Amino acid sequence: MTRRLPLWKCLRGTVCRRAMITQIDEILILLSASDTFNKLNIGRTLKESLNKMLPSILDTAAKNSRSVRVYVMTAFGCPYTGKISIEDIVQLLLKLSYMGASEVVLVDSTGMANPRSVQSTLRILLDLQLDINLAVHFHNTRGAAIANCVAAYDAGVRIFDTSLGGMSATPYGVSELDIGCWNVPTEDLVHLFEEMGVKTGVDLEKLLDCVRLAEQMAGMHLPGHLLRAGRSSQIVGIPKHLERHQIMDKKIGGVLKTASMLIFKSADVYFVYTLQFQSFLDLFEHGLFSLIVWSVHQAEPAGDAEGLQSVVLVLDQDR
Amino acid sequence: MTRRLPLWKCLRGTVCRRAMITQIDEILILLSASDTFNKLNIGRTLKESLNKMLPSILDTAAKNSRSVRVYVMTAFGCPYTGKISIEDIVQLLLKLSYMGASEVVLVDSTGMANPRSVQSTLRILLDLQLDINLAVHFHNTRGAAIANCVAAYDAGVRIFDTSLGGMSATPYGVSELDIGCWNVPTEDLVHLFEEMGVKTGVDLEKLLDCVRLAEQMAGMHLPGHLLRAGRSSQIVGIPKHLERHQIMDKKIGGVLKTASMLIFKSADVYFVYTLQFQSFLDLFEHGLFSLIVWSVHQAEPAGDAEGLQSVVLVLDQDR
Repeated sequence: MTRRLPLWKCLRGTVCRRAMITQIDEILILLSASDTFNKLNIGRTLKESLNKMLPSILDTAAKNSRSVRVYVMTAFGCPYTGKISIEDIVQLLLKLSYMGASEVVLVDSTGMANPRSVQSTLRILLDLQLDINLAVHFHNTRGAAIANCVAAYDAGVRIFDTSLGGMSATPYGVSELDIGCWNVPTEDLVHLFEEMGVKTGVDLEKLLDCVRLAEQMAGMHLPGHLLRAGRSSQIVGIPKHLERHQIMDKKIGGVLKTASMLIFKSADVYFVYTLQFQSFLDLFEHGLFSLIVWSVHQAEPAGDAEGLQSVVLVLDQDR
Repeated sequence: MTRRLPLWKCLRGTVCRRAMITQIDEILILLSASDTFNKLNIGRTLKESLNKMLPSILDTAAKNSRSVRVYVMTAFGCPYTGKISIEDIVQLLLKLSYMGASEVVLVDSTGMANPRSVQSTLRILLDLQLDINLAVHFHNTRGAAIANCVAAYDAGVRIFDTSLGGMSATPYGVSELDIGCWNVPTEDLVHLFEEMGVKTGVDLEKLLDCVRLAEQMAGMHLPGHLLRAGRSSQIVGIPKHLERHQIMDKKIGGVLKTASMLIFKSADVYFVYTLQFQSFLDLFEHGLFSLIVWSVHQAEPAGDAEGLQSVVLVLDQDR
């Protein structure tokens, strides 16, 4: 188990040297590709972070054989200043590599990345063939985090930051989304990768136990899907309510022989389109349903048709 | 505006002929690539659907210049029987094309698709170069729907079924997910495509108005992200709470000059790692915080260090 020490707020060589007397294996450092974001989150300009703080930390870590993982926030865009140029990211990665960072994490702090920008950025960075690990850390602020992970995998990245159920407590710089559960759910990504034929080495059942525990501790459903959906390779039995529908369908089928109906269902609710008012009455009077909505749509009458009636029926639970 | 008539439950030529006297433009038909799923949802074997029901419907539609859109459910896997072979899908598409369907929608009914299976399936189908539109309809049962849309786009598909905010009322054949909001949120996909440089022709602001209305009608938050996250290209102002942190950070910075702390923050909560008990007391006694948790982690003491203390502090709102 690697012991990690986050130096989020206090990028100082003295603090790092002090940490060296503990058994910490890796130092974690936050930077931002955006100077504005860096100032707001780290309290220093990016230049100060790079030129004054990092060298002594990386030097101390190297002398004590500890590795350093650098998080580059807003690598795919800054909510306060907009796009980050690929040239800036390349320069940053070259500097960090030269200074001896062992791993750089490209963080999409406010969910501004998309599969195209992810692929183009990562292909350029990986083409540099630097002796440094490249990882990605996507936030699902706009629903694209999993798609971005797939794009990053296709570009050649093999290290992905995720969290159980998608938990996080990151402020996002988006007015209505200051704190949220927007990380990539570990279980969803592991399952997807395995389905894609990418071996992860993760025991999915044990992972789901952890997610279950995390939800218990959080006291709420986390955004990850897999805990409730289950593996897609898991063949399931036919649900009872569908079996019941089979019986109901036969009864309704009998009614339909004498009525003119177009009907489709969703669980216990039947949506019925009928071309004749009488045929609707036939069905309703047969007593299989409780009516809830009638004549939602009324198509323009044409020819001798009475117009298209649409009704929504709910199965009477007692029948 | 195209008027569409769903023939979900009642695949009968007589019903279709009756519809021809209305001004319906397109007939929608449901099938399943899985015979078991077809029997459960349509009440017929797939063979019966294909050989008995569809020919007369497609014939009637063709004679009256109406188009037919066929939904192929479980195209990427059946929850009751497992994988669907690509040969079966190819045969089905060839039949539907030969019979005159204008559009076939591959439906991932229970979210079993992944970007690899989507790309391989669609590339084979598109290589057939049939005179038929190919569309996709993904469910986000396992969190991969948006990634699957991107894969389908990359394979050459240009027609995507989505819904406002991701609304749906589909039963999924997954025990804990019988009814849910698992469609692809239109606004999330439109935004992502536009960000990827794919022009959709959709007015995103008007679309978000519709999503807002849909949420009002549903009386709850729908799973789409964009309504609350906003466009990623939209530069936002620096949130007030971050400005406040700037002031607090200066005060805390003053304290830190005399204490030995590693500190990082998340909104109003400060996480503090300290190597010396005294330095924690210095900070706490300065009175900027209300303490909530102290000594969460206790690293193994090494050398002359007193061990690594970890505390979680909450900003005192009154200061």
